[in-house]
Amino acid sequence: MTISVNVRERVLHANEAAAAALRERFAATGTLVVNLVSSPGSGKTTLLETTLDALHRSLRVAALVGDIATERDAARLRATGAPARQILTGGACHLDARQLLQELDAAPFGDLDVLFVENVGNLICPTAYDLGEDFKVVLLSVAEGDDKPFKYPAIFARADVTLVTKTDLVPYVRFDWAEAVGQVRALRPDGRVLGVSAFTGEGIEAWVEFLRERLAVKRAAFARAHEPLGAGA
Amino acid sequence: MTISVNVRERVLHANEAAAAALRERFAATGTLVVNLVSSPGSGKTTLLETTLDALHRSLRVAALVGDIATERDAARLRATGAPARQILTGGACHLDARQLLQELDAAPFGDLDVLFVENVGNLICPTAYDLGEDFKVVLLSVAEGDDKPFKYPAIFARADVTLVTKTDLVPYVRFDWAEAVGQVRALRPDGRVLGVSAFTGEGIEAWVEFLRERLAVKRAAFARAHEPLGAGA
Repeated sequence: MTISVNVRERVLHANEAAAAALRERFAATGTLVVNLVSSPGSGKTTLLETTLDALHRSLRVAALVGDIATERDAARLRATGAPARQILTGGACHLDARQLLQELDAAPFGDLDVLFVENVGNLICPTAYDLGEDFKVVLLSVAEGDDKPFKYPAIFARADVTLVTKTDLVPYVRFDWAEAVGQVRALRPDGRVLGVSAFTGEGIEAWVEFLRERLAVKRAAFARAHEPLGAGA
Repeated sequence: MTISVNVRERVLHANEAAAAALRERFAATGTLVVNLVSSPGSGKTTLLETTLDALHRSLRVAALVGDIATERDAARLRATGAPARQILTGGACHLDARQLLQELDAAPFGDLDVLFVENVGNLICPTAYDLGEDFKVVLLSVAEGDDKPFKYPAIFARADVTLVTKTDLVPYVRFDWAEAVGQVRALRPDGRVLGVSAFTGEGIEAWVEFLRERLAVKRAAFARAHEPLGAGA
Protein backbone atom coordinates (compact mmCIF):
# COMPACT_ATOMS: atom_id res chain seq x y z
CA MET A 1 0.00 0.00 0.00
CA THR A 2 1.34 3.43 -0.93
CA ILE A 3 0.89 5.57 2.15
CA SER A 4 2.63 8.63 3.48
CA VAL A 5 5.85 8.27 5.44
CA ASN A 6 4.17 9.87 8.47
CA VAL A 7 1.34 7.37 8.62
CA ARG A 8 3.76 4.48 8.15
CA GLU A 9 5.97 5.80 10.95
CA ARG A 10 3.04 6.20 13.35
CA VAL A 11 1.91 2.63 12.63
CA LEU A 12 5.42 1.22 13.10
CA HIS A 13 5.89 3.28 16.27
CA ALA A 14 2.72 1.81 17.80
CA ASN A 15 3.91 -1.64 16.79
CA GLU A 16 7.31 -1.09 18.43
CA ALA A 17 5.68 -0.23 21.76
CA ALA A 18 3.62 -3.42 21.70
CA ALA A 19 6.65 -5.46 20.60
CA ALA A 20 8.64 -4.10 23.54
CA ALA A 21 5.84 -5.14 25.91
CA LEU A 22 5.80 -8.62 24.40
CA ARG A 23 9.59 -8.91 24.63
CA GLU A 24 9.50 -7.97 28.32
CA ARG A 25 6.81 -10.56 28.95
CA PHE A 26 8.71 -13.30 27.11
CA ALA A 27 11.93 -12.38 28.95
CA ALA A 28 10.13 -12.78 32.28
CA THR A 29 9.21 -16.37 31.44
CA GLY A 30 12.37 -17.22 29.46
CA THR A 31 10.24 -18.02 26.41
CA LEU A 32 12.02 -18.31 23.06
CA VAL A 33 9.86 -16.72 20.34
CA VAL A 34 10.31 -17.62 16.68
CA ASN A 35 8.61 -15.58 13.91
CA LEU A 36 8.18 -17.64 10.72
CA VAL A 37 7.76 -15.72 7.47
CA SER A 38 7.35 -16.92 3.88
CA SER A 39 5.27 -16.78 0.72
CA PRO A 40 1.94 -18.61 0.77
CA GLY A 41 2.56 -22.31 0.31
CA SER A 42 6.25 -22.46 1.25
CA GLY A 43 5.43 -24.99 3.94
CA LYS A 44 5.27 -23.03 7.21
CA THR A 45 2.40 -25.03 8.66
CA THR A 46 3.79 -28.39 7.56
CA LEU A 47 7.19 -27.51 9.06
CA LEU A 48 5.49 -26.47 12.30
CA GLU A 49 3.52 -29.71 12.44
CA THR A 50 6.80 -31.62 12.25
CA THR A 51 8.54 -29.27 14.68
CA LEU A 52 5.78 -29.31 17.32
CA ASP A 53 5.64 -33.07 16.98
CA ALA A 54 9.38 -33.30 17.68
CA LEU A 55 9.30 -30.92 20.67
CA HIS A 56 5.98 -30.99 22.49
CA ARG A 57 6.66 -34.03 24.65
CA SER A 58 9.87 -32.59 26.10
CA LEU A 59 9.18 -28.85 26.03
CA ARG A 60 6.25 -26.49 26.64
CA VAL A 61 5.59 -25.28 23.10
CA ALA A 62 2.69 -23.49 21.40
CA ALA A 63 1.88 -21.73 18.15
CA LEU A 64 0.01 -18.62 17.05
CA VAL A 65 -0.94 -18.61 13.38
CA GLY A 66 -1.84 -15.53 11.35
CA ASP A 67 -4.08 -15.74 8.31
CA ILE A 68 -6.43 -13.55 6.30
CA ALA A 69 -9.13 -16.21 6.46
CA THR A 70 -9.85 -19.78 7.71
CA GLU A 71 -8.89 -21.50 10.96
CA ARG A 72 -7.39 -24.44 9.08
CA ASP A 73 -3.75 -24.00 10.05
CA ALA A 74 -4.34 -23.76 13.80
CA ALA A 75 -6.57 -26.85 13.60
CA ARG A 76 -3.79 -28.74 11.77
CA LEU A 77 -1.25 -27.72 14.42
CA ARG A 78 -3.50 -28.67 17.36
CA ALA A 79 -3.66 -32.17 15.92
CA THR A 80 0.00 -32.56 17.00
CA GLY A 81 -1.16 -32.27 20.62
CA ALA A 82 0.44 -28.86 21.14
CA PRO A 83 -1.74 -25.82 21.81
CA ALA A 84 -2.24 -23.56 18.78
CA ARG A 85 -4.53 -20.64 18.04
CA GLN A 86 -5.44 -18.70 14.93
CA ILE A 87 -5.31 -14.92 14.62
CA LEU A 88 -7.42 -13.67 11.72
CA THR A 89 -5.99 -10.37 10.50
CA GLY A 90 -9.16 -9.05 8.89
CA GLY A 91 -7.46 -8.58 5.55
CA ALA A 92 -4.11 -7.27 6.81
CA CYS A 93 -1.07 -8.72 5.06
CA HIS A 94 0.96 -9.39 8.23
CA LEU A 95 0.62 -9.91 11.97
CA ASP A 96 1.34 -6.97 14.24
CA ALA A 97 2.50 -6.96 17.84
CA ARG A 98 -0.76 -5.53 19.17
CA GLN A 99 -2.68 -8.50 17.78
CA LEU A 100 -0.33 -10.88 19.62
CA LEU A 101 -0.63 -8.92 22.84
CA GLN A 102 -4.44 -8.97 22.65
CA GLU A 103 -4.51 -12.67 21.84
CA LEU A 104 -2.14 -13.61 24.67
CA ASP A 105 -4.05 -11.40 27.13
CA ALA A 106 -7.39 -12.90 26.11
CA ALA A 107 -6.22 -16.52 26.35
CA PRO A 108 -2.73 -17.01 27.81
CA PHE A 109 -0.87 -20.23 26.98
CA GLY A 110 0.81 -20.18 30.42
CA ASP A 111 4.60 -20.25 30.70
CA LEU A 112 6.18 -21.61 27.53
CA ASP A 113 9.64 -22.72 26.49
CA VAL A 114 9.06 -21.90 22.84
CA LEU A 115 6.31 -19.91 21.11
CA PHE A 116 6.16 -20.22 17.33
CA VAL A 117 4.45 -17.42 15.44
CA GLU A 118 3.45 -18.32 11.91
CA ASN A 119 2.99 -15.06 10.05
CA VAL A 120 0.55 -14.38 7.19
CA GLY A 121 1.84 -15.85 3.91
CA ASN A 122 3.70 -12.86 2.48
CA LEU A 123 7.40 -12.18 1.81
CA ILE A 124 7.06 -8.40 2.04
CA CYS A 125 4.64 -6.97 4.60
CA PRO A 126 5.69 -8.95 7.71
CA THR A 127 9.30 -7.78 7.36
CA ALA A 128 9.01 -4.45 9.15
CA TYR A 129 6.82 -5.69 12.02
CA ASP A 130 8.68 -6.74 15.16
CA LEU A 131 6.53 -9.21 17.11
CA GLY A 132 8.80 -9.30 20.15
CA GLU A 133 10.47 -12.38 18.69
CA ASP A 134 13.99 -13.63 19.41
CA PHE A 135 14.54 -14.13 15.70
CA LYS A 136 12.86 -14.39 12.34
CA VAL A 137 13.00 -17.46 10.12
CA VAL A 138 12.30 -17.12 6.41
CA LEU A 139 11.20 -20.18 4.42
CA LEU A 140 11.86 -20.51 0.69
CA SER A 141 10.58 -23.58 -1.10
CA VAL A 142 12.76 -24.96 -3.89
CA ALA A 143 9.66 -24.79 -6.13
CA GLU A 144 9.73 -20.97 -5.82
CA GLY A 145 13.13 -20.66 -7.46
CA ASP A 146 16.63 -19.63 -6.42
CA ASP A 147 16.20 -15.93 -7.34
CA LYS A 148 13.91 -14.94 -4.49
CA PRO A 149 16.41 -13.57 -1.92
CA PHE A 150 17.54 -10.72 -4.22
CA LYS A 151 13.95 -10.04 -5.29
CA TYR A 152 12.68 -9.84 -1.68
CA PRO A 153 15.89 -8.74 0.04
CA ALA A 154 14.56 -7.21 3.26
CA ILE A 155 13.23 -10.39 4.83
CA PHE A 156 16.31 -12.44 3.89
CA ALA A 157 18.52 -9.75 5.44
CA ARG A 158 16.52 -9.77 8.68
CA ALA A 159 16.06 -13.50 9.19
CA ASP A 160 18.65 -15.30 11.34
CA VAL A 161 17.82 -18.50 9.47
CA THR A 162 16.76 -19.25 5.92
CA LEU A 163 15.04 -22.63 5.66
CA VAL A 164 15.10 -23.95 2.11
CA THR A 165 12.01 -26.18 2.19
CA LYS A 166 10.62 -29.02 0.05
CA THR A 167 14.12 -30.26 -0.77
CA ASP A 168 12.47 -33.53 -1.89
CA LEU A 169 11.37 -31.59 -5.01
CA VAL A 170 14.94 -30.66 -6.05
CA PRO A 171 15.12 -33.33 -8.78
CA TYR A 172 11.97 -31.96 -10.43
CA VAL A 173 12.56 -28.18 -10.40
CA ARG A 174 15.22 -25.74 -11.50
CA PHE A 175 16.81 -24.66 -8.23
CA ASP A 176 20.49 -23.80 -8.03
CA TRP A 177 21.47 -24.30 -4.40
CA ALA A 178 24.75 -22.34 -4.72
CA GLU A 179 22.89 -19.38 -6.28
CA ALA A 180 20.27 -19.29 -3.50
CA VAL A 181 22.85 -19.62 -0.71
CA GLY A 182 25.07 -17.01 -2.36
CA GLN A 183 22.18 -14.53 -2.44
CA VAL A 184 21.29 -15.17 1.20
CA ARG A 185 24.96 -14.80 2.26
CA ALA A 186 25.26 -11.50 0.36
CA LEU A 187 22.23 -10.15 2.24
CA ARG A 188 22.99 -11.71 5.60
CA PRO A 189 26.60 -12.86 5.94
CA ASP A 190 26.12 -14.45 9.40
CA GLY A 191 22.79 -16.09 8.53
CA ARG A 192 22.25 -19.83 8.71
CA VAL A 193 20.86 -21.69 5.71
CA LEU A 194 19.31 -25.10 6.34
CA GLY A 195 17.66 -27.38 3.80
CA VAL A 196 14.60 -29.27 5.04
CA SER A 197 11.89 -31.56 3.77
CA ALA A 198 9.01 -32.15 6.15
CA PHE A 199 7.90 -34.84 3.69
CA THR A 200 11.07 -37.02 3.87
CA GLY A 201 12.34 -35.67 7.19
CA GLU A 202 15.61 -34.48 5.61
CA GLY A 203 17.22 -31.70 7.65
CA ILE A 204 14.56 -31.67 10.37
CA GLU A 205 17.01 -32.94 12.98
CA ALA A 206 19.43 -30.07 12.27
CA TRP A 207 16.57 -27.55 12.47
CA VAL A 208 15.33 -28.93 15.79
CA GLU A 209 18.91 -28.96 17.10
CA PHE A 210 19.26 -25.32 16.05
CA LEU A 211 16.10 -24.48 18.03
CA ARG A 212 17.39 -26.32 21.10
CA GLU A 213 20.68 -24.37 20.89
CA ARG A 214 18.85 -21.06 20.71
CA LEU A 215 16.63 -22.11 23.64
CA ALA A 216 19.73 -22.98 25.67
CA VAL A 217 21.14 -19.50 25.01
CA LYS A 218 17.83 -17.93 26.04
CA ARG A 219 17.69 -20.00 29.21
CA ALA A 220 21.24 -19.07 30.15
CA ALA A 221 20.33 -15.38 29.82
CA PHE A 222 17.16 -16.00 31.84
CA ALA A 223 19.14 -17.76 34.58
CA ARG A 224 21.69 -14.94 34.78
CA ALA A 225 18.89 -12.36 35.04
CA HIS A 226 17.25 -14.30 37.88
CA GLU A 227 20.25 -15.49 39.89
CA PRO A 228 20.48 -14.14 43.46
CA LEU A 229 22.69 -11.06 43.87
CA GLY A 230 26.23 -12.08 44.73
CA ALA A 231 25.80 -15.64 43.47
CA GLY A 232 28.16 -17.12 40.87
CA ALA A 233 31.68 -15.67 40.60
CA MET B 1 -0.10 -2.61 7.13
CA THR B 2 -2.63 -1.56 9.74
CA ILE B 3 -3.76 1.90 8.71
CA SER B 4 -6.89 3.91 9.28
CA VAL B 5 -9.88 3.42 7.01
CA ASN B 6 -9.63 7.06 5.92
CA VAL B 7 -6.04 6.79 4.74
CA ARG B 8 -6.79 3.54 2.92
CA GLU B 9 -9.78 5.12 1.21
CA ARG B 10 -7.79 8.15 0.09
CA VAL B 11 -5.08 5.89 -1.36
CA LEU B 12 -7.60 3.71 -3.17
CA HIS B 13 -9.47 6.77 -4.43
CA ALA B 14 -6.28 8.18 -6.00
CA ASN B 15 -5.61 4.78 -7.53
CA GLU B 16 -9.12 4.62 -9.01
CA ALA B 17 -8.63 7.95 -10.78
CA ALA B 18 -5.37 6.75 -12.35
CA ALA B 19 -6.94 3.40 -13.25
CA ALA B 20 -9.81 5.20 -15.02
CA ALA B 21 -7.27 7.23 -17.03
CA LEU B 22 -5.42 4.04 -17.98
CA ARG B 23 -8.65 2.29 -18.95
CA GLU B 24 -9.62 5.22 -21.22
CA ARG B 25 -6.19 5.11 -22.84
CA PHE B 26 -6.31 1.34 -23.41
CA ALA B 27 -9.87 1.63 -24.80
CA ALA B 28 -8.66 4.22 -27.31
CA THR B 29 -6.10 1.79 -28.72
CA GLY B 30 -8.17 -1.39 -28.23
CA THR B 31 -5.43 -2.84 -26.01
CA LEU B 32 -6.30 -5.87 -23.90
CA VAL B 33 -4.67 -5.54 -20.47
CA VAL B 34 -4.05 -8.56 -18.26
CA ASN B 35 -3.02 -8.17 -14.60
CA LEU B 36 -1.17 -11.27 -13.32
CA VAL B 37 -1.13 -11.81 -9.56
CA SER B 38 0.37 -14.61 -7.46
CA SER B 39 2.67 -15.52 -4.60
CA PRO B 40 6.39 -15.18 -5.21
CA GLY B 41 7.59 -18.16 -7.20
CA SER B 42 4.26 -19.34 -8.64
CA GLY B 43 5.67 -18.96 -12.14
CA LYS B 44 4.37 -15.62 -13.42
CA THR B 45 7.56 -14.76 -15.31
CA THR B 46 8.02 -18.24 -16.74
CA LEU B 47 4.39 -18.27 -17.91
CA LEU B 48 4.87 -14.85 -19.49
CA GLU B 49 8.05 -15.98 -21.27
CA THR B 50 6.06 -18.81 -22.83
CA THR B 51 3.06 -16.57 -23.57
CA LEU B 52 5.06 -13.75 -25.18
CA ASP B 53 6.94 -16.34 -27.18
CA ALA B 54 3.63 -17.73 -28.48
CA LEU B 55 2.13 -14.33 -29.32
CA HIS B 56 4.78 -11.77 -30.23
CA ARG B 57 5.21 -12.72 -33.88
CA SER B 58 1.48 -12.35 -34.65
CA LEU B 59 0.43 -9.63 -32.18
CA ARG B 60 1.84 -6.42 -30.74
CA VAL B 61 2.46 -7.50 -27.14
CA ALA B 62 4.49 -6.07 -24.27
CA ALA B 63 4.95 -6.55 -20.53
CA LEU B 64 5.38 -4.38 -17.46
CA VAL B 65 6.83 -6.18 -14.46
CA GLY B 66 6.58 -5.01 -10.86
CA ASP B 67 9.14 -6.00 -8.27
CA ILE B 68 10.55 -4.76 -5.00
CA ALA B 69 14.10 -5.18 -6.30
CA THR B 70 16.13 -6.40 -9.31
CA GLU B 71 15.50 -5.96 -13.05
CA ARG B 72 15.81 -9.72 -13.63
CA ASP B 73 12.27 -10.46 -14.72
CA ALA B 74 12.04 -7.75 -17.38
CA ALA B 75 15.42 -8.88 -18.75
CA ARG B 76 14.14 -12.47 -18.94
CA LEU B 77 11.01 -11.33 -20.79
CA ARG B 78 12.92 -9.14 -23.27
CA ALA B 79 14.88 -12.24 -24.27
CA THR B 80 11.67 -13.47 -25.94
CA GLY B 81 11.94 -10.54 -28.39
CA ALA B 82 8.91 -8.72 -26.96
CA PRO B 83 9.37 -5.35 -25.26
CA ALA B 84 9.29 -5.53 -21.45
CA ARG B 85 10.11 -3.06 -18.72
CA GLN B 86 10.56 -3.27 -14.98
CA ILE B 87 8.80 -1.05 -12.45
CA LEU B 88 10.57 -1.06 -9.09
CA THR B 89 8.05 -0.30 -6.36
CA GLY B 90 10.49 0.99 -3.77
CA GLY B 91 9.36 -1.52 -1.19
CA ALA B 92 5.63 -1.39 -1.92
CA CYS B 93 3.88 -4.77 -1.95
CA HIS B 94 1.86 -4.18 -5.16
CA LEU B 95 1.79 -2.06 -8.30
CA ASP B 96 -0.54 0.91 -8.37
CA ALA B 97 -2.17 2.60 -11.35
CA ARG B 98 -0.17 5.80 -10.97
CA GLN B 99 3.08 3.87 -11.39
CA LEU B 100 1.78 2.39 -14.66
CA LEU B 101 0.62 5.77 -15.88
CA GLN B 102 4.01 7.33 -15.14
CA GLU B 103 5.88 4.46 -16.77
CA LEU B 104 3.74 4.50 -19.93
CA ASP B 105 4.03 8.32 -20.16
CA ALA B 106 7.80 8.21 -19.75
CA ALA B 107 8.35 5.48 -22.33
CA PRO B 108 5.26 4.49 -24.34
CA PHE B 109 5.22 1.06 -25.97
CA GLY B 110 3.16 2.44 -28.89
CA ASP B 111 -0.20 0.87 -29.76
CA LEU B 112 -0.46 -2.66 -28.42
CA ASP B 113 -2.81 -5.57 -28.87
CA VAL B 114 -2.05 -7.01 -25.44
CA LEU B 115 -0.25 -5.55 -22.44
CA PHE B 116 0.65 -7.99 -19.69
CA VAL B 117 1.22 -6.56 -16.23
CA GLU B 118 3.09 -8.86 -13.87
CA ASN B 119 2.34 -7.66 -10.37
CA VAL B 120 4.65 -7.88 -7.35
CA GLY B 121 4.73 -11.42 -5.93
CA ASN B 122 1.99 -11.20 -3.30
CA LEU B 123 -1.45 -12.81 -2.97
CA ILE B 124 -2.89 -10.06 -0.78
CA CYS B 125 -1.84 -6.47 -1.48
CA PRO B 126 -2.39 -6.32 -5.28
CA THR B 127 -6.03 -7.40 -4.88
CA ALA B 128 -7.56 -4.00 -4.17
CA TYR B 129 -5.56 -2.06 -6.80
CA ASP B 130 -7.25 -1.67 -10.16
CA LEU B 131 -4.58 -1.12 -12.83
CA GLY B 132 -7.04 -0.34 -15.60
CA GLU B 133 -6.88 -3.99 -16.66
CA ASP B 134 -9.53 -5.95 -18.55
CA PHE B 135 -9.17 -8.78 -16.09
CA LYS B 136 -7.02 -10.27 -13.38
CA VAL B 137 -5.38 -13.68 -13.56
CA VAL B 138 -4.31 -15.42 -10.37
CA LEU B 139 -1.64 -18.12 -10.51
CA LEU B 140 -1.46 -20.92 -7.94
CA SER B 141 1.35 -23.44 -8.23
CA VAL B 142 0.53 -27.03 -7.27
CA ALA B 143 3.54 -26.89 -4.93
CA GLU B 144 1.73 -24.25 -2.84
CA GLY B 145 -1.14 -26.57 -1.95
CA ASP B 146 -4.84 -26.84 -2.70
CA ASP B 147 -5.97 -24.82 0.35
CA LYS B 148 -4.89 -21.39 -0.87
CA PRO B 149 -8.14 -20.05 -2.44
CA PHE B 150 -10.02 -20.11 0.89
CA LYS B 151 -6.99 -18.71 2.72
CA TYR B 152 -6.59 -15.79 0.28
CA PRO B 153 -10.18 -15.47 -0.91
CA ALA B 154 -10.23 -11.90 -2.24
CA ILE B 155 -7.90 -12.42 -5.18
CA PHE B 156 -9.50 -15.72 -6.22
CA ALA B 157 -12.92 -14.01 -6.14
CA ARG B 158 -11.69 -11.13 -8.32
CA ALA B 159 -9.70 -13.05 -10.92
CA ASP B 160 -11.52 -14.07 -14.12
CA VAL B 161 -9.04 -16.92 -14.48
CA THR B 162 -7.18 -19.11 -12.03
CA LEU B 163 -4.12 -20.70 -13.60
CA VAL B 164 -2.97 -23.75 -11.68
CA THR B 165 0.72 -23.77 -12.58
CA LYS B 166 3.56 -26.30 -12.45
CA THR B 167 1.19 -29.18 -13.15
CA ASP B 168 4.29 -31.25 -14.02
CA LEU B 169 4.91 -31.41 -10.24
CA VAL B 170 1.53 -33.03 -9.45
CA PRO B 171 3.04 -36.53 -9.00
CA TYR B 172 5.46 -35.22 -6.37
CA VAL B 173 3.24 -33.02 -4.18
CA ARG B 174 -0.02 -33.29 -2.28
CA PHE B 175 -2.44 -31.31 -4.42
CA ASP B 176 -6.10 -32.28 -4.66
CA TRP B 177 -7.34 -30.83 -7.94
CA ALA B 178 -11.05 -31.20 -7.03
CA GLU B 179 -10.48 -29.41 -3.71
CA ALA B 180 -8.70 -26.47 -5.37
CA VAL B 181 -11.27 -26.13 -8.15
CA GLY B 182 -14.12 -26.44 -5.65
CA GLN B 183 -12.68 -23.60 -3.57
CA VAL B 184 -12.22 -21.37 -6.64
CA ARG B 185 -15.77 -22.11 -7.84
CA ALA B 186 -17.21 -21.27 -4.40
CA LEU B 187 -15.46 -17.90 -4.52
CA ARG B 188 -16.00 -17.17 -8.20
CA PRO B 189 -18.72 -19.36 -9.76
CA ASP B 190 -18.15 -18.05 -13.32
CA GLY B 191 -14.33 -18.17 -13.09
CA ARG B 192 -12.21 -20.25 -15.44
CA VAL B 193 -9.65 -22.68 -14.03
CA LEU B 194 -6.87 -23.80 -16.35
CA GLY B 195 -3.97 -26.11 -15.52
CA VAL B 196 -0.64 -25.20 -17.13
CA SER B 197 2.97 -26.26 -17.08
CA ALA B 198 5.36 -23.88 -18.80
CA PHE B 199 7.96 -26.64 -18.38
CA THR B 200 6.13 -29.37 -20.36
CA GLY B 201 3.85 -27.03 -22.33
CA GLU B 202 0.71 -28.70 -20.92
CA GLY B 203 -2.29 -26.37 -21.06
CA ILE B 204 -0.42 -23.49 -22.71
CA GLU B 205 -2.44 -23.80 -25.91
CA ALA B 206 -5.74 -23.46 -24.01
CA TRP B 207 -4.38 -20.43 -22.14
CA VAL B 208 -3.23 -18.73 -25.35
CA GLU B 209 -6.58 -19.54 -26.97
CA PHE B 210 -8.35 -17.98 -23.99
CA LEU B 211 -6.27 -14.80 -24.48
CA ARG B 212 -7.09 -14.70 -28.19
CA GLU B 213 -10.81 -15.03 -27.38
CA ARG B 214 -10.67 -12.17 -24.91
CA LEU B 215 -8.75 -10.07 -27.43
CA ALA B 216 -11.41 -10.77 -30.07
CA VAL B 217 -14.10 -9.54 -27.65
CA LYS B 218 -12.07 -6.41 -26.93
CA ARG B 219 -11.54 -5.75 -30.64
CA ALA B 220 -15.24 -6.15 -31.38
CA ALA B 221 -16.04 -3.55 -28.72
CA PHE B 222 -13.31 -1.30 -30.13
CA ALA B 223 -14.71 -1.65 -33.67
CA ARG B 224 -18.25 -0.83 -32.49
CA ALA B 225 -17.00 2.26 -30.69
CA HIS B 226 -15.13 3.46 -33.77
CA GLU B 227 -17.54 2.57 -36.56
CA PRO B 228 -18.90 5.56 -38.53
CA LEU B 229 -22.28 6.83 -37.33
CA GLY B 230 -25.09 5.14 -39.22
CA ALA B 231 -22.90 2.27 -40.40
CA GLY B 232 -23.88 -1.35 -39.73
CA ALA B 233 -27.57 -2.09 -39.15
